[in-house]
Amino acid sequence: MSGPARPRSRPTPVSGFPELLPAQRLVEQQVLATLATTFGLHGFAPLETRAVEPLDQLLRKGDTSKEVYVLQRLQAADDTAEDDGEAGPGLGLHFDLTIPFARYVLENAGRLEFPFRRYQIQKVWRGERPQEGRFREFTQADIDIVGRDQLPFHHDVEIARVMVDALTRLPFLPRFRLQVNNRKLIQGFYTGLGIADLDEVMRLVDKLDKLPAETVRGLLVEDAGLSQEQAGQCLALAQVSSPDTSFVDRVRALGVRHDLLEEGLTELAEVVERCADLTGPGVEVVADLRIARGLDYYTGTVFETRLDGFEGLGSICSGGRYDSLASDGRTTYPGVGISLGVSRLLVPLFQRGLLSGDRSVPSAVLVALPDEASRAECDAIAQGLRSRGVATEVAPTPQKYGKQIRYAERRGIPFVWFPASAADGSDADQPAGHQVKDIRSGEQTGADPGSWRPPTEDLLPRIVVPTGPTGATTDATTEGTTDEGAPR
Amino acid sequence: MSGPARPRSRPTPVSGFPELLPAQRLVEQQVLATLATTFGLHGFAPLETRAVEPLDQLLRKGDTSKEVYVLQRLQAADDTAEDDGEAGPGLGLHFDLTIPFARYVLENAGRLEFPFRRYQIQKVWRGERPQEGRFREFTQADIDIVGRDQLPFHHDVEIARVMVDALTRLPFLPRFRLQVNNRKLIQGFYTGLGIADLDEVMRLVDKLDKLPAETVRGLLVEDAGLSQEQAGQCLALAQVSSPDTSFVDRVRALGVRHDLLEEGLTELAEVVERCADLTGPGVEVVADLRIARGLDYYTGTVFETRLDGFEGLGSICSGGRYDSLASDGRTTYPGVGISLGVSRLLVPLFQRGLLSGDRSVPSAVLVALPDEASRAECDAIAQGLRSRGVATEVAPTPQKYGKQIRYAERRGIPFVWFPASAADGSDADQPAGHQVKDIRSGEQTGADPGSWRPPTEDLLPRIVVPTGPTGATTDATTEGTTDEGAPR
Repeated sequence: MSGPARPRSRPTPVSGFPELLPAQRLVEQQVLATLATTFGLHGFAPLETRAVEPLDQLLRKGDTSKEVYVLQRLQAADDTAEDDGEAGPGLGLHFDLTIPFARYVLENAGRLEFPFRRYQIQKVWRGERPQEGRFREFTQADIDIVGRDQLPFHHDVEIARVMVDALTRLPFLPRFRLQVNNRKLIQGFYTGLGIADLDEVMRLVDKLDKLPAETVRGLLVEDAGLSQEQAGQCLALAQVSSPDTSFVDRVRALGVRHDLLEEGLTELAEVVERCADLTGPGVEVVADLRIARGLDYYTGTVFETRLDGFEGLGSICSGGRYDSLASDGRTTYPGVGISLGVSRLLVPLFQRGLLSGDRSVPSAVLVALPDEASRAECDAIAQGLRSRGVATEVAPTPQKYGKQIRYAERRGIPFVWFPASAADGSDADQPAGHQVKDIRSGEQTGADPGSWRPPTEDLLPRIVVPTGPTGATTDATTEGTTDEGAPR
Repeated sequence: MSGPARPRSRPTPVSGFPELLPAQRLVEQQVLATLATTFGLHGFAPLETRAVEPLDQLLRKGDTSKEVYVLQRLQAADDTAEDDGEAGPGLGLHFDLTIPFARYVLENAGRLEFPFRRYQIQKVWRGERPQEGRFREFTQADIDIVGRDQLPFHHDVEIARVMVDALTRLPFLPRFRLQVNNRKLIQGFYTGLGIADLDEVMRLVDKLDKLPAETVRGLLVEDAGLSQEQAGQCLALAQVSSPDTSFVDRVRALGVRHDLLEEGLTELAEVVERCADLTGPGVEVVADLRIARGLDYYTGTVFETRLDGFEGLGSICSGGRYDSLASDGRTTYPGVGISLGVSRLLVPLFQRGLLSGDRSVPSAVLVALPDEASRAECDAIAQGLRSRGVATEVAPTPQKYGKQIRYAERRGIPFVWFPASAADGSDADQPAGHQVKDIRSGEQTGADPGSWRPPTEDLLPRIVVPTGPTGATTDATTEGTTDEGAPR
């Protein structure tokens, strides 16, 4: 028997492919569960698509081609003879979840009910240069609604409301701003100004995020051939922003007239108006006429989302209305959707030490092991607790109790259970009967293995948000608890 | 503005990359949630690793190289100048979750607590020829326990018990047989027989799944150079199987003696003995001395699992003890684990029509829409239901109520809510006040939007198992309910 080949040195991370430690992953899991639950409560079905798409689908928009990872079977050249005849255009890893979803809708249209709501939480891959918040592998959480032939406008409002509902259930999130705009508004305004190359102008105005307005003005004149007046009007439009419908008058005051502009103003006003009640301490919904979503496939409403204090991350949650992404030539499936960059949001918070969990294991209880002969008894106690939904593990070895308590402490397990057999004279400090100790407070009480449960807030690991220079933490999992609740 | 390029014909599936319809995916989601919850209750942390590993890690075992998908950036050749300097050996998609986990343990050993329990539910990729139950992209659910320097044997028993606990919570599953063997037992037996090339003999004996015993005997003699007596002994060992520890005497009766054989017999007897209480109507735990797990890295206990009536799928759940997979040269991290082939299990059941869900949406309630002006009121009713955990959607258009009820029926939504405003004389059939209709029974009652909840068993889609030639279904989600509970 040949011994297995082993790695002989410690492996190192691969740039752009972040991985979480167990305590962080327990936080991410709770975040994903909150998102999935919220989307499901709104009637969105939990779709998944395969990780690969035919390359010709992925490369439909030329400017993304650089980012696509192409798949090749290692010995593909050697074994074409025994291959399954599937030639095809080659496969690449998907770089978003919208293109695969549009393809899925076309492929399965006859078996879907429209309007079709789905959420999709999956990894995507882009071969771009890694930087903070930008990875080569990352998790996105998308919601979309797709109709057949037509999709009423109220679904644009619905998509915004559902995502805000989900985000506001993440109490560790800094205050965020959902910025809404409308492609028809921009296109109508530009066309009304007499501009021909709308894409180019949109692309340059999008640079306002990174370049000063005067630089962008220069580019609009020199690169896009706009007059000084046209360039000035484009910049003036991009500066309009309001938390209410007052933006409509400000745009009209710019003096440009076009039917598509009017349509866009009406739609954007409706989104802002019907989301006004969402604005609160943690969230603001605003019309922001600078938002354009680059060269994407959007045709109406567009969304971006920025986090207070994390503007450098860019938009953590983006999307919009796409009326012609999915079409088989006869039938068109218009849609509206929004995509949350889960990794873009969480990984920087982990990396900056602004978010963590208080346990590295799901376990709420460690059953102490008096001696190896008691393992079956301890297993039975643990299984009883599990049957009531309490995550429980049994100590791996019958060390001294002090060591077993430290085993729990190192993992953040809040309770240690001492079986009744442990009290049979073997330890003078242990009273008779089953005992359970809250190792944070040191409090120890008698407990019935058939009915005891920990407090509900101790069932799952807590999400903790370190605050201030002292490193004090606040519990972000449940509102109204204090620092005392978090063990460390 | 250039119009988006569109696919002009209906896309077709990619062989080996199965995708589920929404109702099926809702079933898969419940299955994955059950697995994750069970693993968490046993203290396993929910790890995820990146989808890629360095190729030199993936190719450590030569015979898997054909299956690896290699990643290449589409324009990698063009932009090496602006690349981030990361040269490395190239990346491939992982083909299992054990190799990545071993790498993760080595990479993060200083930040993990041992013994380290983790579960990992992720997609894996293999470029092999697709067939029933064998895919190029599929989901696995793995549990592993890894120690530093040593890992007590009782964890072998624990791994088996945890996986059986999880599988028995899937009530749609046919009866399954967990088959346990021990590599030490096989190695000791073969060595005791004077056989030198253990790997080759194991590889040939493994063919008993597909070839008659006499053919395998011939191969053992001709290919592996065994004597007729040695070949006969190997086949005799492979035929030993028992649901209890009686296998020990049957092996001893074969007359081979070796220390490693004794060690293996003791370990295997302990697993079988300590899992005996698990055997019941849905599961059997047996010692089966034919199981060897091919050329894998196992060093002691090995597991396979077969489903009654689905023997052709092979083992749906396999694993074992690996004492030297993860080592950095100084420290070794022995482990034991088992891996459930979620896609291998579910996709054939879906394809054969033996498993399905009763809804294509999570929604338990459709709020009917009397007219477009009532949308805000209907949204408020829906949001109230959602706040009590009831998945709810609002009808997309104010069609006639008959059509709205059919909208719910087509999706399997069990309840339709008629808002009070709907009864304001607009429909003579509608009594005053809020009404909720169970569209399966037709029963309609008054309901308070501030407190009404559907029966608990209607909160989530049900898993249904069509039985018999009549296509009658039984509800597999909750025990004790009858066919009447399932709407269709």
